[in-house]
Formats: sequence, structure tokens, C-alpha cells
Amino acid sequence: LSIDKFEIEGFRFSAVGAGIKHADSDRLDLALIASERPAITVGVTTTNLVCAAPVTITRECLQRGISQALLINSGNANAYTGDSGLADALFLTKSVADRLGIAHELVVPMSTGVIGQPLPVDRMNAKIPELAALISASAFLDAASAILTTDTFPKTALVEKRLSNGPLKIVGMAKGAGMMAPNMATMLAVVLVNMRVEESYLRNVFARANSLTFNRITVDGDTSTNDTAIVMSGGSDQSKELLDNDTDRDLFSQGVLSVCANLARQIVKDGEGATKVVEVKVFGAPDEVSAARVSRRIAESPLVKTAFHGEDPNWGRIVCAAGSAGVKFDPSMIDLWIGSVQIVKSGILEVGDWEARAKQEMRYPEFSVSIDLKTGSAHATILTCDLSEEYVAINADYRS
Amino acid sequence: LSIDKFEIEGFRFSAVGAGIKHADSDRLDLALIASERPAITVGVTTTNLVCAAPVTITRECLQRGISQALLINSGNANAYTGDSGLADALFLTKSVADRLGIAHELVVPMSTGVIGQPLPVDRMNAKIPELAALISASAFLDAASAILTTDTFPKTALVEKRLSNGPLKIVGMAKGAGMMAPNMATMLAVVLVNMRVEESYLRNVFARANSLTFNRITVDGDTSTNDTAIVMSGGSDQSKELLDNDTDRDLFSQGVLSVCANLARQIVKDGEGATKVVEVKVFGAPDEVSAARVSRRIAESPLVKTAFHGEDPNWGRIVCAAGSAGVKFDPSMIDLWIGSVQIVKSGILEVGDWEARAKQEMRYPEFSVSIDLKTGSAHATILTCDLSEEYVAINADYRS
Repeated sequence: LSIDKFEIEGFRFSAVGAGIKHADSDRLDLALIASERPAITVGVTTTNLVCAAPVTITRECLQRGISQALLINSGNANAYTGDSGLADALFLTKSVADRLGIAHELVVPMSTGVIGQPLPVDRMNAKIPELAALISASAFLDAASAILTTDTFPKTALVEKRLSNGPLKIVGMAKGAGMMAPNMATMLAVVLVNMRVEESYLRNVFARANSLTFNRITVDGDTSTNDTAIVMSGGSDQSKELLDNDTDRDLFSQGVLSVCANLARQIVKDGEGATKVVEVKVFGAPDEVSAARVSRRIAESPLVKTAFHGEDPNWGRIVCAAGSAGVKFDPSMIDLWIGSVQIVKSGILEVGDWEARAKQEMRYPEFSVSIDLKTGSAHATILTCDLSEEYVAINADYRS
Repeated sequence: LSIDKFEIEGFRFSAVGAGIKHADSDRLDLALIASERPAITVGVTTTNLVCAAPVTITRECLQRGISQALLINSGNANAYTGDSGLADALFLTKSVADRLGIAHELVVPMSTGVIGQPLPVDRMNAKIPELAALISASAFLDAASAILTTDTFPKTALVEKRLSNGPLKIVGMAKGAGMMAPNMATMLAVVLVNMRVEESYLRNVFARANSLTFNRITVDGDTSTNDTAIVMSGGSDQSKELLDNDTDRDLFSQGVLSVCANLARQIVKDGEGATKVVEVKVFGAPDEVSAARVSRRIAESPLVKTAFHGEDPNWGRIVCAAGSAGVKFDPSMIDLWIGSVQIVKSGILEVGDWEARAKQEMRYPEFSVSIDLKTGSAHATILTCDLSEEYVAINADYRS
């Protein structure tokens, strides 16, 4: 694969080190993504009552449905920073707009990092000329690296399909790691589409993809102040339109879902201290909301997550967590599997060597837990990770 | 203090090692508590849909409001053990009833330990004659030790007051440690009252005490299949009646509250891997349910709990957790303290050396976090502990 496989018509990227986290570090921490022309933009933001200053501005952009540049920093969330935090974000987006020669309201700010610290505005602003000068079609990976915090690798995804009106390309980047239990969107995710897609349709496609991917992952059950996921489509005057036929539309929505699912899985895989990715699948639920609720309860239980870490097929904790989810089912009816190993069948513990076999399944870096509640036909899957000593070590002194 | 300070008129105790957890261990794991005559009994049990066999039997006893003996084992929860689990519990309570010469339905079984394993009924039954023979007024501490699992110390509490009709004595024991986030009751708690108290009044007093103590603690947010808290009152023919005057009734309800609060605090203090007890106080909430919800959200956040562990006054995580509790308030209005150190005042971060002073407060084994939401006059406090590497280590291989 070429180094430029993430190049996408109509979009350019740059990243610099602005010393946001540490004044004396040149780690990349400020990224710019710009389209050649205003792009149709949809997205979702955190449901946390305490939302960051950039989220407030992002919401206004999302209402207008159009944007041309994303200014993203890591190392500082610009959250709970009051009116001055809002002024800081507006000052920086204005600076970008002026430098790019575009309207101020087309610049969307996104921030991630520590809560409650003022942005180092002067240091950041001083870097904006360089950021604008460096911008190029081939710096996607630099931008994807600059948005990371405690992440251990950049999260990227790419889909290409042949549509009747030309090639479709969708690229995405995300950052995750901690404070991860999005309720409307993930930490930060950016998805770019080469084709031009009308806003209302794009919003529907992304809402569905988001609900099935970013909203179905959890690392630690905490919902961030900054969660934002954004899709920009049609960044160039030459961008082809997505035609209105079933085949093209199906391929497109599958593509968006695939990019989001790929990024969401990487976020869980790179969960703070995580060594396992676990798919918690709940079947036979009365409705999808109930299925997701039981699945999430299991996926967020510290006792279940530590057992995952210990590769211990402690199915009792899984059943116990399911029972406390507030969803009605008959515990004496359920089936339960770890990977492909059935442990409980119609409420009865299996005989034989299921324990050794289930333990074997849990040795893999990815495995699944499945429960059939036998009360309906709805299902949902939540992706989670294990809870390790490393998670505690990372978060006990994240700020220092 | 004398070794027999827990002696209480009308009640006797014994404990033996029945090899429940490990067949070859003589660790105390089976306890018997019996009153001289049937005692007025009230209590609460888990809200988990998956409830253990002994809980089913306990609920029937609580409906009758009377009991004479509690048979409590650790090492095996007898949960998710189906019809045979129920038969096992009934077999053992029948054995106790026959040995004590009392009616079968007066014996309440309680179990705690691993889920999904059959009780070693034969080993347990073989010990019942010894358990009955050993019973004495002075073995309270043996019983309090026998009910422990991963607890590191027995949890006991004692209140004595002078009432107009004679001395009031209330003693209590509990076990906690892991799978702790009671929603109706704690893991196992037994409170004994020397005086005779009518059932309806006792039920009200205990319901209130339970809601303010056992229901306001969390270690890891998991609700057990076996949570049970029981109060027995008036175990002797000579038991004095609690008179119906305000002074005596106030002293009595304060006494019950005090014993429950004391036990609840010890459960948190002995939380798996815990090194800190933290009171999360929420003031100025629109109603008590909302206050408790915000408080619990903070108290259960892994990011907040790891920051407690690292003695890091990471107030941003606290505000973030509060904001995701689903309770409406204005983040720009709130006050926030760690211990007596104010960090946020009307939404504005304090200047000065608050960080060093807050860090100093967090060095203590117990401290508080307080938030004033400024949206009403209701308040609630949840007791929680920190999340340490030790919690993960304990739970990653609890069963092995």
C-alpha cells in the first residue's frame, strides 16, 4: 500500500507541534483539515451536560450543515473554560479562516485532552501560518497522529467502491483511548467522503452508522465533554454526486458504516490498558434498546472486565451483570457462550470441558460473549475491552 | 472493651469450617445465628433479576416477618444453581430446624461466594450438629468472620442507648468487598436488636436506614445476586418492648441508622483493593433522587476513582461525570470542593494554591468531594472508594 493511500479528492491536511501539552515538546498536537470548497457536513456531539467550548461552536456549524476546515488540537480539551474558552476557540478559528481566506463560520474547532485548562492560544496562533503553508493532500497520517492523546496508535480507515457515477472513497480518522463511552458520538472522529452527498441523506446514513458503531463501544463508561464525530462530503468543485439509485446508496451507506465500525473497533482495541477486544452480543431481546442495555451492562461491569483480563470464563459474573440491567427476562431460560463454546443452555450449566475450552477462546486478543435471552428477536452488540492494572496506572496520574 | 461486647440478649452464635471454598481448608465459612424464640424479622434483598436460591427462601421468610435462625455460608453463592440449588438450601435449613427443634420456615439461609457452583451439601450438613452444639452468646465475632469472602477484616457495629423501658442494644455484622453496588440492600448484613419492636415500625425504620446507608455505597457498580440485609428484633421471652414515645423511637431509629452507616462505611473501606474512602456529596439538587444520581455517577466513574487512587485533584473528571448523570443543572453555576478546599466557585476555577491543598486532603485515607448544583435544596451522599491496580489483580483471578 502506498503511503498516500489516504489521499482523497478535495481534502488536504497538515499537522504541527504547537507545544499544547508540554510547551517544550515538538510532538504533533495541532491538525488542520481543509476542503477546497465548502463541504456538506453532518455530525454528532457529546450528550454530556458539561460540553467543551469547541463543541458549542461545532454544534452551530452542524446546524448550518456546511464547513470547510477543521482545526483539531490534542493535549487540551478547552472544556469547562467558560466564556474565555469560547473566545479562545473563536479567536483561533478566525485566525485559520483569515489565513485560508474563507468565512469564519466555515471553520470547526475540535479539542481533546485535559479539562479545565486555558488553551495556550498564543503558541497555537503562532503556528497557524505554518499549518496553512504545510497543507497537502498527502498529510492525512500526520493529522491522524496529531489528534491523539494517550492513544498508542493512529486510528484510520479507508473504503473504496466503484459506483455508477465514478469511484467512491471514504477515509476516516479517530482518537479514543480513555473517557470512552460515547452516548451520541465518540471522542473525536472525522470521516471524509470524496463524493457530494445531500445533507439530509448524509445525516440519516451517519446517524445510523453512529448508533451502530461509536455508540456501541465502551472502554470505561465515562462520557467525555468533547465527543464529536463529523462527516464532510464533496470537498472539490469536481466532486461527483452520489446518484439516487438503490445500488449506489446501499454501497455508500455500507461504506460509511464500514469506516465507522473500523474506527470504533480500533478505539476499543487501543482502550487505555486494554489487552483484549470483546464483542458482547445479546440476542433474543424484546427490543433493540433492551438488547443494547443488557449488552452495555455486561460490557461496563468492572468484575466482568477484570475476568476478561484474567482470561477467566467467569460466566456467573456475566449472568449477574445481565440480571441487573433493568431488562426483564427469565434467567432459567437463557443460553450463554464465550466464543463458540456454549456454557449455559436453557439455564443449565453445560457438563464437560467447557471451562478449558472457553479459557482457550479468551486467550485470543479478540473474542465474543453471547447471550440469548429467549424473550424476543432483537439483538445488539457492544464492543468493550478488558480492565487491566495498566488502566489504573495510566489514569491515576494522567495529568502529571 | 471486653471480648464479649457483642453479646446481646436473646441471640446466640456459632461458626465452623465446612470446607465450602476449599474442601481441605478449615477456614470458618459456615455460621449460625439463632434467637431463643421467634424474632420479628424484616429485611431487603437484591434487585438483581438473577437472584440466588437462598434469596428466594429469604424473601418468603421476610413476607412472614418472623424467623429464629440464620444459616449463612461464604465461599459459594448458591446462585444460578436452578431447582437443585433451591432444594439444597431447603435441605440444609431443614437440617438446622430439626437440630434446633424449631419450625423449618423459621430458618433463613444466606450465601455469598462464587456463582453457579452447587453447594457442597454433604460437607455442610455433616457440620450442622457441631454448629448447633457450639452455639453460644459470645461467638458473635466467629460468625462475623465466617461470612467473609475477599474481605480483609470482619465488619461489626454496636450501639447501646438507655431507653425509658430499659437498655437498647443493637449489634450488626456485614460482609462486602466486591460486587458491591447494592440497589436495595448490601451483600450480607445482619442487625440484631435486643428489644421487641413491632414489625411495621421496624420495617419503616430499616427501610429508611437502608436507603441512606447500604443503598448509598458503591465499590464497583456491580449489583450482586445475593444482596441481603436482615434485622431480627426481640430474641428472648424477656425482651423488653420498645415503647411508643417519640424519645425512645427517635433513639431507636438513630441507633439502627448508626449501626447500618457504620457497617456500610466498613464495606467501602474494605472494598477490593481500596486505599481511600471518599464521601461524594451533592448539594443544591432539585430532588434527592437527582442528588443521589449525580453523586453515584461520580462515585462510579473509573476515571474519577483512579484519580482518587493517584491523589490527583482532577476536578475536570468530576465535573464531566456529573454532567453525564442525566440530571439537569447549569455547569457554569456550580461550586466544587475536595475536602475543605474550594476548587470551583460559581463555575470559575479558583486561583491560588488550591491544587497543592486539595492534593494534601487526598492524602488522607478518608476525604470528601462536594458539589453544589445550585438548582434546588436536596442533597445526597454516596460513599465510594478508589480504583487501584489491586482491584484488578484480585478480580482477574478471584476464582483460581
